[in-house]
Amino acid sequence: MHHASDILLTLFIVFLAAQVGSEVAQRLKLPGGVGEIAAGCVVGPSLLGWITPEQVASGTPLDVLAEVGVVLLLFSVGLETRLEDLKKVGKVAFLVGVLGVLVPFGMGGVWAHASGFDWSRSLFIAAAFVATSAGITARVLQELGALQRIESKVILGAAVIDDILAMLLLGVVVSLQGGEGIDVVHLLAVLAGAIGFIAIIGIGGARVMRWNSSWLDKPQSPHSALAIVLALCLGLAYVSTLFGLAAIIGAFLAGMIASETRQQHTLEKQTQPLLALLTPFFFVITGSKIDLHQLGNAEAGIMLLVVTLIAIVSKLIGGFLGAWSLGGRSATLVGFGMVPRGEVGVVIASLGLAAGVFTAQIYAIIVAMSLLTAMVTPPVLAWLLRRANASVGTEAVRDDAVER
Amino acid sequence: MHHASDILLTLFIVFLAAQVGSEVAQRLKLPGGVGEIAAGCVVGPSLLGWITPEQVASGTPLDVLAEVGVVLLLFSVGLETRLEDLKKVGKVAFLVGVLGVLVPFGMGGVWAHASGFDWSRSLFIAAAFVATSAGITARVLQELGALQRIESKVILGAAVIDDILAMLLLGVVVSLQGGEGIDVVHLLAVLAGAIGFIAIIGIGGARVMRWNSSWLDKPQSPHSALAIVLALCLGLAYVSTLFGLAAIIGAFLAGMIASETRQQHTLEKQTQPLLALLTPFFFVITGSKIDLHQLGNAEAGIMLLVVTLIAIVSKLIGGFLGAWSLGGRSATLVGFGMVPRGEVGVVIASLGLAAGVFTAQIYAIIVAMSLLTAMVTPPVLAWLLRRANASVGTEAVRDDAVER
Repeated sequence: MHHASDILLTLFIVFLAAQVGSEVAQRLKLPGGVGEIAAGCVVGPSLLGWITPEQVASGTPLDVLAEVGVVLLLFSVGLETRLEDLKKVGKVAFLVGVLGVLVPFGMGGVWAHASGFDWSRSLFIAAAFVATSAGITARVLQELGALQRIESKVILGAAVIDDILAMLLLGVVVSLQGGEGIDVVHLLAVLAGAIGFIAIIGIGGARVMRWNSSWLDKPQSPHSALAIVLALCLGLAYVSTLFGLAAIIGAFLAGMIASETRQQHTLEKQTQPLLALLTPFFFVITGSKIDLHQLGNAEAGIMLLVVTLIAIVSKLIGGFLGAWSLGGRSATLVGFGMVPRGEVGVVIASLGLAAGVFTAQIYAIIVAMSLLTAMVTPPVLAWLLRRANASVGTEAVRDDAVER
Repeated sequence: MHHASDILLTLFIVFLAAQVGSEVAQRLKLPGGVGEIAAGCVVGPSLLGWITPEQVASGTPLDVLAEVGVVLLLFSVGLETRLEDLKKVGKVAFLVGVLGVLVPFGMGGVWAHASGFDWSRSLFIAAAFVATSAGITARVLQELGALQRIESKVILGAAVIDDILAMLLLGVVVSLQGGEGIDVVHLLAVLAGAIGFIAIIGIGGARVMRWNSSWLDKPQSPHSALAIVLALCLGLAYVSTLFGLAAIIGAFLAGMIASETRQQHTLEKQTQPLLALLTPFFFVITGSKIDLHQLGNAEAGIMLLVVTLIAIVSKLIGGFLGAWSLGGRSATLVGFGMVPRGEVGVVIASLGLAAGVFTAQIYAIIVAMSLLTAMVTPPVLAWLLRRANASVGTEAVRDDAVER
């Protein structure tokens, strides 16, 4: 009858840590997500050790709750995103996505080679510099009510491109590492599959919903529409993993489809409590994966600093160049928005460790870099957004507020 | 990057099965929960085998999601329950709780002994007849908007008493089975702990909130009050397991405390989407634990029928006698409300199997009985409630609707 005791304690610790962390962060004028990641670091193995690495390993209940949390987060971001708006920024987003992958990959590879790794290892390490984790940025943009800004649309569109390219790149480096040649036909098929999935689901789904969404109305139960779109969200999150994409891409598409329905505003409201319960698990558990002990000596510390700097600067350059046409200030915002690597870098590092490509030290450094970029970005982003809002004047800000 | 693929598929299957099941049930004028349990039986090992017993074992992600689902369900039921109302029905609820434990324990024990088990085994088997699972009944009462009825208050109050007694009884039969004597002092200490916990938290917490809940208002974030009470819910769910009680008792207390706040109505609304996402996991997974294959032969089938009949009749008699003072019709409603054993019976059966007290067949029968009582109750309850509403006339029904 009482088997669930331990896991309930852990859920309580994670959830409470998130509340305390986010409260402290908000008092320091930082985004709540930073506080939750920091709280995760505090309750994790670095300090208190209340959450162990085993408890958050892949496939554990906490890992699944975190996954559901970030899936719902991107779903809710999709709910605030219209396909039309994404199309408008299509070209810029594409450029940001492509350059935001190539520049970090290039700079990461050169650094790794210069540090003494052979080329095949260097390219694997470089792949860990690539993939942006959209969850961190999305939360900051949502918290500050900035999802309707053009820069936010560019970031979200670019995150989709980014995920496709990162997946292909990872496929390439894994093949190279295994001593296999690159199967160009296979890669093209994978690329076509991913693009086809996104295009058919995103564009087709949005069209269907715009054409007729009255079937979602069910007077007898106020939550049927929510239940249907949540099923769509879980379903597309799963299907997108079949195409080699991150689950959050499918969730984002599901939200975008649902944003075309008449129920959009109700759905947005109903999604908020889901985020309040579940996204803390994503952020706290992300933070709990930072293990400061492994980075104790000076050499590792300096290496971490260098790697993090390269990760930030390279992504910033890529994003900035890609969004150049929006003007310098917007391009900076977009560039910073692409910086967080979050859990994606952690997963690539784990692959590298499992394949014997990464040493324990380089693994720890890549993980710490991924999470550091996730922690550094939100405050910078918040500051840039406040400055942008201030300079545009109250008019635009008010428009924004009304639109939400 | 794509490690979460399998679990996402499972989440999707469970959630979709719940939607289909609940839709079909509603068209057949049955409560949604029955449809979800039936859907779980269909996707479980009995028929499709999409959900395996390993996937829903204790401590797996699905098990934890189910646990969170039922915890939130009882939290939301608590949100609609005032301490004052429970106090009014205190005596009746106490009688229902006590008789609803003693009669099934007695009848179950006599049946087991008559079937050829020795007394110490018989008492263990009898313990599996005892504990009511409040989740099933609570959902039906909530779906039909009947939580404000006096019978509902009696059922909820009795469920708390029932859980305390079931816990003590289980302690006794486990000691007897182990050949140890009964440590009366220890049992009294456990009893005092459980009662003390409930009294201090329930009464104290409700008083504090009624006295002042304005500190829950935080204008800058509309979900802080929700976050705080969710933390309270997870925390009390955990603490109640420390006192040997079910997690849902703590969650119910947390809801009852929160029902005294000024934010009660907002919280009720915000809890609905959480239930829409998470309670399906509880109901589908409960259903997926039914394995019809193990009950294929005639002997087992007849035994199951007898056991289920005893389980239903004994609880009905106990509840009916306890609630006699409310009149025959209300007493019948209360009696049926106490019938579902649900997951609690499953847990006791697992303990019995692990301790070597139960054979595989008796285990399968007890599990099937627990789940059958959970499936049989909701339609009967819904029918009784409709009849009760019809005979009282529209006046009372309208009052009820306004009150909600």
